[in-house]
Amino acid sequence: MELIFLGTGAGVPSKGRNVTSLALMMLNERNAIWLFDCGEATQHQILYSQVKLSKVEKIFITHMHGDHIFGLPGLLSSRSFQGGDSELVVYGPEGIKSYIETSLALSGTHLSYPLRIEEIALDGMVYQDETIKVSCMELDHGISSFGFRIEESDKQGALDAEGLMQKGIKPGPLFKQLKDGEKVTLPNGEILDGKDYIGPTQKGKVLAIFGDTRSFAREEELARDADLIVHEATFEAEKGEMARAYMHSTTKEAATLARNAEAKRLIITHISSRYDKETSEQLVSEARSIFPKTEIASDLRTFEI
Amino acid sequence: MELIFLGTGAGVPSKGRNVTSLALMMLNERNAIWLFDCGEATQHQILYSQVKLSKVEKIFITHMHGDHIFGLPGLLSSRSFQGGDSELVVYGPEGIKSYIETSLALSGTHLSYPLRIEEIALDGMVYQDETIKVSCMELDHGISSFGFRIEESDKQGALDAEGLMQKGIKPGPLFKQLKDGEKVTLPNGEILDGKDYIGPTQKGKVLAIFGDTRSFAREEELARDADLIVHEATFEAEKGEMARAYMHSTTKEAATLARNAEAKRLIITHISSRYDKETSEQLVSEARSIFPKTEIASDLRTFEI
Repeated sequence: MELIFLGTGAGVPSKGRNVTSLALMMLNERNAIWLFDCGEATQHQILYSQVKLSKVEKIFITHMHGDHIFGLPGLLSSRSFQGGDSELVVYGPEGIKSYIETSLALSGTHLSYPLRIEEIALDGMVYQDETIKVSCMELDHGISSFGFRIEESDKQGALDAEGLMQKGIKPGPLFKQLKDGEKVTLPNGEILDGKDYIGPTQKGKVLAIFGDTRSFAREEELARDADLIVHEATFEAEKGEMARAYMHSTTKEAATLARNAEAKRLIITHISSRYDKETSEQLVSEARSIFPKTEIASDLRTFEI
Repeated sequence: MELIFLGTGAGVPSKGRNVTSLALMMLNERNAIWLFDCGEATQHQILYSQVKLSKVEKIFITHMHGDHIFGLPGLLSSRSFQGGDSELVVYGPEGIKSYIETSLALSGTHLSYPLRIEEIALDGMVYQDETIKVSCMELDHGISSFGFRIEESDKQGALDAEGLMQKGIKPGPLFKQLKDGEKVTLPNGEILDGKDYIGPTQKGKVLAIFGDTRSFAREEELARDADLIVHEATFEAEKGEMARAYMHSTTKEAATLARNAEAKRLIITHISSRYDKETSEQLVSEARSIFPKTEIASDLRTFEI
């Protein structure tokens, strides 16, 4: 998996940072891309990224503020224009359905693909299949704002193909049976147990992607033991009062969350336009003093997960 | 007056051209800027132009297609964020009010300035004051699409200050009376008639700014004798059938309109993304073969009027 930050600013676009959007690239895992938020000009940023609109399978909207949704109608239209034909599902707070449907209807936009819009209202499971699940938690931002926890299922360990071939077994039906954990009897009477030839289970990755929020204690539940947290840090550490007043977080609060949740990595984003390239470096230093494995997002920067 | 093209592409944004928006700069004339159309990321383009959001006084929307309106909610929000406090009026076809109000309400956007939205349905006068008037005509684009004719009032000629000073009259109340066309009696008994000291009336400029449209005969009425026509030319001359099918115009049709309307200048815009920088030059050549005073718009290009 990879994360591509398409917009990392707060409130309004600036020359340095566009408004919020984040692409979770899962081309190897499911031949699909998920977006988290879709501020205005997300489709413009995508022109300069590896994101293909036709591969966008799901869009999760954290909250209804304009800097997180105003790019949706255009992106949905352009996906159609570019010949996307697979179903797209948008998950978001109450109002997202009316917003999208009104925008598309009044602009006379007819999509070439099925669009499903699911409104989420409560903490809990948002999406689940055999390989991945997404749950959400309501945050503290004045209006409904959600954080999403994305958990890959654990992956079965790899079959010890080399060991088997040394025993003279060739790739084929026997490999399949052993991989399924079955016992097989060889022509010479030897019995092999699949379990002995399967490596250790690979833990699925866990991501926690937060919408805009003030810091609050229960955030830790969403982020517990995550491999990677993406959290806003609109303000520097000493602007705690301003952050509370504007319903946002500071660098220090994001880093403290990551430490307390015992996460492995933190990426801070949603950076106020008051911080330029240089002062953004101070932000990441502040966070690292509390949680060393912190990075700061910038537009089009990509992170391997 | 100046025109700044903020977006000159058709349908979807590309690396070369953003979707449609045009700024009519009237800072000297009325300390204001008018926008025509507001495709997605118009506010982003504005970051690289001389347009100040607080000076945007009116926005005219030609039609409701997404590539002409999806930038409105974000631009209106950012004008507020930047402290704009003067009234803004949006004129556009039926549906524009619902689109804006729904987008702002669902995104929890509260504007710091009065916003008025006027829906236009019929040909006729859209706005008029002492110095300028705007009328509209419905075009041929499948949905309601309007063209706007902007006519500055004629300006009184300049007072012949030099001639008056040679007669020993100094700038002051007499100048004012003469400028108002009155007769004044000098101390020596001589009677001067203001009309003799006022230069010829300066004709107000006339612009015709078209929304998306197929070519049709009555377009000429909107463009008659205009100083400048802005007209779409989505396709090259030989793609006439495609242009008709998609409800657009060709270079040749735009140029023929300008010639028949006896306009002074033509700027073609709304260029399909199939044309790159090089083939765009062919488009303008085609148009010039019919109407030599043609230019082609490009993003952020500015034209003096």
